[in-house]
Amino acid sequence: MAAQSALSSKTQRSNHSMNISGLLNRLPAASWAREYNKQQLSDDGLAAVIVTIMLIPQSLAYALLAGLPPQMGLYASISPLIAYALFGSSRVLAVGPVAVVSLMTAATLGKLGLGDDIAALTEAAVTLAFISGVMMAILGMLRAGVIANFLSHPVISGFITASGVLIAISQLKHILGIKVSGHNLPEIVGSLFSNLGNMNIITAIIGVLTVAFLFWVRKGLKPLLLARGMSKTMADVGAKAGPVLSIVVMTSLVWIFSLDENGVKIVGEIPMGLPPMTMPSFDPALWATLAPSAFLISLIGFVESISIAQTLAAKERQRIEPNFELAGLGAANIAAAMTSGYPVTGGFARSVVNYDAGAKTPLAGVFTAGGILLTALLLTPLFYYLPNAVLAATIIVAVLSIVDIDAIKHIYSYSKRDFAALAVTILGVWLVGVEAGVMAGVATALGLFLWRTARPHYAIVGRVGNSEHFRNILRHAVTTHPALLCLRIDESLYFANARFLEDTVLAEVSDNPDIKHVILQCTAVNEVDASAMDALENLNRRLIDMKVDLHLTEVKGPVMDQLSRSHFLTHLSGDVHLTQFQAWEKLTA
Amino acid sequence: MAAQSALSSKTQRSNHSMNISGLLNRLPAASWAREYNKQQLSDDGLAAVIVTIMLIPQSLAYALLAGLPPQMGLYASISPLIAYALFGSSRVLAVGPVAVVSLMTAATLGKLGLGDDIAALTEAAVTLAFISGVMMAILGMLRAGVIANFLSHPVISGFITASGVLIAISQLKHILGIKVSGHNLPEIVGSLFSNLGNMNIITAIIGVLTVAFLFWVRKGLKPLLLARGMSKTMADVGAKAGPVLSIVVMTSLVWIFSLDENGVKIVGEIPMGLPPMTMPSFDPALWATLAPSAFLISLIGFVESISIAQTLAAKERQRIEPNFELAGLGAANIAAAMTSGYPVTGGFARSVVNYDAGAKTPLAGVFTAGGILLTALLLTPLFYYLPNAVLAATIIVAVLSIVDIDAIKHIYSYSKRDFAALAVTILGVWLVGVEAGVMAGVATALGLFLWRTARPHYAIVGRVGNSEHFRNILRHAVTTHPALLCLRIDESLYFANARFLEDTVLAEVSDNPDIKHVILQCTAVNEVDASAMDALENLNRRLIDMKVDLHLTEVKGPVMDQLSRSHFLTHLSGDVHLTQFQAWEKLTA
Repeated sequence: MAAQSALSSKTQRSNHSMNISGLLNRLPAASWAREYNKQQLSDDGLAAVIVTIMLIPQSLAYALLAGLPPQMGLYASISPLIAYALFGSSRVLAVGPVAVVSLMTAATLGKLGLGDDIAALTEAAVTLAFISGVMMAILGMLRAGVIANFLSHPVISGFITASGVLIAISQLKHILGIKVSGHNLPEIVGSLFSNLGNMNIITAIIGVLTVAFLFWVRKGLKPLLLARGMSKTMADVGAKAGPVLSIVVMTSLVWIFSLDENGVKIVGEIPMGLPPMTMPSFDPALWATLAPSAFLISLIGFVESISIAQTLAAKERQRIEPNFELAGLGAANIAAAMTSGYPVTGGFARSVVNYDAGAKTPLAGVFTAGGILLTALLLTPLFYYLPNAVLAATIIVAVLSIVDIDAIKHIYSYSKRDFAALAVTILGVWLVGVEAGVMAGVATALGLFLWRTARPHYAIVGRVGNSEHFRNILRHAVTTHPALLCLRIDESLYFANARFLEDTVLAEVSDNPDIKHVILQCTAVNEVDASAMDALENLNRRLIDMKVDLHLTEVKGPVMDQLSRSHFLTHLSGDVHLTQFQAWEKLTA
Repeated sequence: MAAQSALSSKTQRSNHSMNISGLLNRLPAASWAREYNKQQLSDDGLAAVIVTIMLIPQSLAYALLAGLPPQMGLYASISPLIAYALFGSSRVLAVGPVAVVSLMTAATLGKLGLGDDIAALTEAAVTLAFISGVMMAILGMLRAGVIANFLSHPVISGFITASGVLIAISQLKHILGIKVSGHNLPEIVGSLFSNLGNMNIITAIIGVLTVAFLFWVRKGLKPLLLARGMSKTMADVGAKAGPVLSIVVMTSLVWIFSLDENGVKIVGEIPMGLPPMTMPSFDPALWATLAPSAFLISLIGFVESISIAQTLAAKERQRIEPNFELAGLGAANIAAAMTSGYPVTGGFARSVVNYDAGAKTPLAGVFTAGGILLTALLLTPLFYYLPNAVLAATIIVAVLSIVDIDAIKHIYSYSKRDFAALAVTILGVWLVGVEAGVMAGVATALGLFLWRTARPHYAIVGRVGNSEHFRNILRHAVTTHPALLCLRIDESLYFANARFLEDTVLAEVSDNPDIKHVILQCTAVNEVDASAMDALENLNRRLIDMKVDLHLTEVKGPVMDQLSRSHFLTHLSGDVHLTQFQAWEKLTA
């Protein structure tokens, strides 16, 4: 007995260790870690240097946008990158603070009315990151990433564009050196104009010059460098270094001329050292307040990430598993919550830079995290004299590039209904706020979809030539028969359109006394719910009263299964035919 | 000029009077008023007498249920009947106070916290009727009656059954002579038990005896009368008179033995006379509070009415126009608001009685209104000693007949998804309240519908025998071809399932390297929205990378119109074929 017990205990232990190694093997990181080589190391290293240079000003700037101390932007760019490298499924996605999520964080924290209480803001921000992270992880484990599909492309497109404009305008306060309040466009613009008199001229000159310089860097520097004979890669790197250059120049100017004593707002002291460990609050009231925003941040962050990840993965014929991606982003946000960060997700521009610079594996993200960590440990005093106006300028230039007017035009010309959802989203974001805008857009898209299915398209069909095919009599040259009403209802039959079917068929039959058979071609009927079943039974009864037989054709398997669970098939006056053609042959014979 | 002006003025006047007579002709009442005859008059008169006898106790009882003075029940049974006779489209619908709407009125008024302030309750009740009436009239004018379809049969079925049980239990307080508070089941049951000690024995005896008697009348009296040789009609009338008999007996007992001095609650003094004219309040705050409830009352009232009206109209091959019906109910509710009533709608039991008793036109309703008016003018002192317990007993017996367990079983066996909506509705009504229950049910039904469309059924299809027909390879004996992937997606392509299509097709293609052509059979695709269009373009691009052509077949007219508004058709690697069979012939040749 003792031997057996020892054996079984050994088996258990070995099972246990197998499970751990099995688990490790199932981590996305396992797929690249085994085959890692020197070439990949040097590729990842170079990409990391470029992304780090790009990420330092962005981290500081997006923290400013989120209404948080600048160091929180740096902290959000360290541990989340490492967590994502372990759990995320994209090889080149670069996570960290991004514009849209920073804006949503600012809107969420603004609702709490914490004022300038940094400790409370920090706690709320890490709690928000924690809740988002947990939600993403749970959605991933439940394989419920599909829920993000309910954010339709027009809604996302409208949201991104509207947010871009909103962010750019909200940053004008830093460019002009004035105080501005409000979270929606009328409030911000109104506050902007009423405070215009307090503008600080030196700040405004710094801000406007930086914006102009950064736009020129984007449009003009790369061609210039190429014309000077620089290689394409180096020209790219040069163009990416533009923001760093403007930071160096403007910070030096402020320092040399003590412009901060003339009212130019500067970043000031950033504590040096490791990111402080933090714990999210577990106050139920705070969770209840933050949860809806956290859910929206999770969805938006996920959608943004997944679309970048899939675009870049497709170029390398790699595949992104959305539910793994949720787990990776969840881990990144939980990591942010533990180390004084705030909500993060995959950033579009920096992921493209990472990919273009040659990143091969998520280790590039780990190296980037190392770069930012060094910055936080050693370089923060360099940012003391950095003017807020320069950070605001980098934000403005970055977000205006996500405003996509062509996408809006394209959607307008493709479908007025899709455009309606987009327009509602844009107006909602501008007039009320980011969350209200997204929710109004989703509600509009769903409402219009339901409204269409409630009043479905239908066609009276006839036989095309001598084929076995039946099409709309209004669009094709077809043969019909006076005793047959062949009707194709182009929608699943469910409660919202149950009455519609009844009304449509009865109206057609009462207008045409020759009709002896009604043949419903069910090719587009993917479901018949209980309400529609009642309607079909009513229809059958009323047609019997009118001495007209009701037939069904081309009923799909799953629908046939449903129908056979009711008594309808035994009451049906006509038959269920496999094909429309067989019904035609039999009833016109 | 003068002559011309006189002429044009005359033309205008004649147009004007033509418009008025045209308008009158378009009233539903015009269709029967012209051909009215003596036989119809006597039929309508008899029906009116029977309905009046049935309506008197119901009116008093439902006012009690609504938490309003008993006379408001009578008032709600006078002018609304006349308004409906003029504007309604059903010839036999009997409108007035009904159980479910009275319960909803009680719940709505309860939220206002008016206590026993009769004047304030009355004003709120007439305002609620007015808002409901205006909403119904507007929905009717906008021809938006279709919106009621979103209340699916399972939700309505669950709501009616749950309300029936809730009402019956809430009336136990009157049967037992105790005070009970609460608007949901746990509150009511809890309050019932904790107050059980204060039970009034005499009230309880009266209440239980009446309930037992009324159940016996329903089940046993009619067969007994028939067995005694009474005609079927007279036996029916006798059975309907049961409640009146119990009222007469119990009222007499209370009067003779002065039971009211022993704690038996009685109706007490009901003012004699015409219904006092009232005006709804136009306080914006009150409107804002009442509007959501009024909307739900409008929808529920409309759905209840229309289903009764259509059931009875079908028996006479008459047709009910839902939007006219809304106008009729709207007029009835506005009339109720003007004459001290409260929200009304078509009642099931009394409409059936009206129809069975031979009512031919809405004039039966006008005569019924006359009967109730006479009651209000002359007979109210007779109800002084009427015990509340007897009214509660009539309510209990009436509502338990609307509890429909069979319908629930049927829906359970037909579709688990429909059953889920029903169960959520029932639990919502019981645990939270009537409004929350309905809204939760509607949300569940819509959510489950959307969830299904987000993960649609799809089938790989093959050719059935030598026909031109293609069906699921798993359900039919079909021919397939290794180079062709013939896929039928059983759903419209829209944002919620856009990614699903992409994933499904790419997974199939990467598992089968022989595939050279993907053929999407679009018979069930009723729409391709902007998100799905993006997905199709992605799919096309990725299939091109895999050297696989993408074809579409049997694309419907409206969808083809959509596709041609994008660049997709020019990028498409394969073709759009009229039929699946043509694609098969061409690609297997």
